[in-house]
Amino acid sequence: MAEFDWIARYFAPLATRAGAAGLCDDVAEFSGRASIATVDALVEGVHFLPDDPMETVARKLVRVNVSDLIAKGARPDEVLLTLGWPSGREEAELAAFAAAFGEELAAWGIALIGGDTVASPHGVFLSLTMTGVGVTERAPIRRSGAQGGEVIWLTGDIGASFFGLRDRLARTRSEASTIYQVPLIPPLEMAELIGEHATASMDVSDGLLADLHKLLVASGCGAKLDLDHVRIYGAGKAELPLSDVLEACTGGDDYQCLFTAPASKTPALEASEQALIQIGQTQDRAGLKLYWHEEPVALPEKLGFEHVQS
Amino acid sequence: MAEFDWIARYFAPLATRAGAAGLCDDVAEFSGRASIATVDALVEGVHFLPDDPMETVARKLVRVNVSDLIAKGARPDEVLLTLGWPSGREEAELAAFAAAFGEELAAWGIALIGGDTVASPHGVFLSLTMTGVGVTERAPIRRSGAQGGEVIWLTGDIGASFFGLRDRLARTRSEASTIYQVPLIPPLEMAELIGEHATASMDVSDGLLADLHKLLVASGCGAKLDLDHVRIYGAGKAELPLSDVLEACTGGDDYQCLFTAPASKTPALEASEQALIQIGQTQDRAGLKLYWHEEPVALPEKLGFEHVQS
Repeated sequence: MAEFDWIARYFAPLATRAGAAGLCDDVAEFSGRASIATVDALVEGVHFLPDDPMETVARKLVRVNVSDLIAKGARPDEVLLTLGWPSGREEAELAAFAAAFGEELAAWGIALIGGDTVASPHGVFLSLTMTGVGVTERAPIRRSGAQGGEVIWLTGDIGASFFGLRDRLARTRSEASTIYQVPLIPPLEMAELIGEHATASMDVSDGLLADLHKLLVASGCGAKLDLDHVRIYGAGKAELPLSDVLEACTGGDDYQCLFTAPASKTPALEASEQALIQIGQTQDRAGLKLYWHEEPVALPEKLGFEHVQS
Repeated sequence: MAEFDWIARYFAPLATRAGAAGLCDDVAEFSGRASIATVDALVEGVHFLPDDPMETVARKLVRVNVSDLIAKGARPDEVLLTLGWPSGREEAELAAFAAAFGEELAAWGIALIGGDTVASPHGVFLSLTMTGVGVTERAPIRRSGAQGGEVIWLTGDIGASFFGLRDRLARTRSEASTIYQVPLIPPLEMAELIGEHATASMDVSDGLLADLHKLLVASGCGAKLDLDHVRIYGAGKAELPLSDVLEACTGGDDYQCLFTAPASKTPALEASEQALIQIGQTQDRAGLKLYWHEEPVALPEKLGFEHVQS
């Protein structure tokens, strides 16, 4: 089937906003509301497994971009999709991708306005450009605004995706493996809290320690991180051994929000209905220091997943 | 080398606009000027050959997006780049890509504001989202605005890329093969003429006949195309046989602008300094009719390059 037919059959029905011109033109018109943009790619064999269902890949593609915007105090608005599709994949898989992509966009209030569909000889390659609207005038909250003496907040569990990938590779079905395929990300309401209160913020994609380290470097300060305060996926009230905690905190693909806020904001953040956990404090002096029940712990050599290229 | 280092070394120096945040953050901020967006991908083995220099690939990536905007009466403003890079490619190739990409952006007055760099196991995969600013209030000029009785205009030669690909595959160096690698596209001034005068417009990417057919279908009218008026690359004043002309007109990858304008606009368009050729007239009755020295010619079965997927 030719590209034109695919677009007409599977994607044009998702593109209802006027600026999309029914995906029948060469350019899109923005809504004019968004001032922020992000782009994230998912590659077969790198960010998802070849036998992951296209439905879950579509949902992950949307969510990894939405989590970037929420972490910046913005809500998503519009997307342009680049779909690289190998000839060996069934049309039914494309249909499943498009259906789930449409559902996921609708769930987050996002409009598809444009894209490009190309042949990809060796595997599915997806890139999604997403625009966002700041929910407050302070948005986007950058990585660089933290100062010493602030509280470090995290929006949810860490490690589900890391444990889930392990299960997937071992061919074990688990709730974690489902979360690896379709990450659980914070709700849109989190963007408002972050837009109002955070001084620095980002989503955790490469590992909690790696991303906190980046935030601290960008902000020019340091931090004390209480590893026993981090909520590890699946641990419940039981306490995991430190080695497991460190593994989860360097695993990546969590897509939770990590942000800092002055101590004066703690009552407002604690009063919110959102799931929020205090995991440490920033310090004037540079450097990331880990603690386990108030005892210092050496930093692991590798703080997170590195996108090593060569 | 890790993704972070690549971005810092090769791409951050290109991202000087404040909204890019030095490519050190998770989102970009738009300039606020652009209201139009397009995205085009280039895939190794599909849109360029594995041994095409990365310098030419970078230039082609920028130009195929710029030509979309010019054809809509818009000038380019900002880009977000998705770079899928295989581990087997040398770092020197990445450096060459980034250098040429930066030069090409600068030549068109475009700012890099964001992107994503990922591993691509089986070949280079590039996607570029480009925003544009309409040069008149009428922009973007859609494909759908043509009416019967208008003049069909083309901005340059057809066929260079088609002949050039043939030369490339035959390992023959030629000017055409250089144009295949780095398309010649109309200058930014063309956007003003189109924004002011055109009723329907698009760039020729899939073949002149295929793209004119799309424009006519979108506009709900037909046309008479004088094939002997189309300027074929390399023909000079000599006349090519009809079969060669048809081959060039269905080849694709021309990236010239194809647009319609009322006959009342002809004096203004002819008086402009831009290269413009009248190649036919639109008609009320649907259907594309080809003529060769006023004699009707049968439509070829295939009007252009089809992105066949399966």
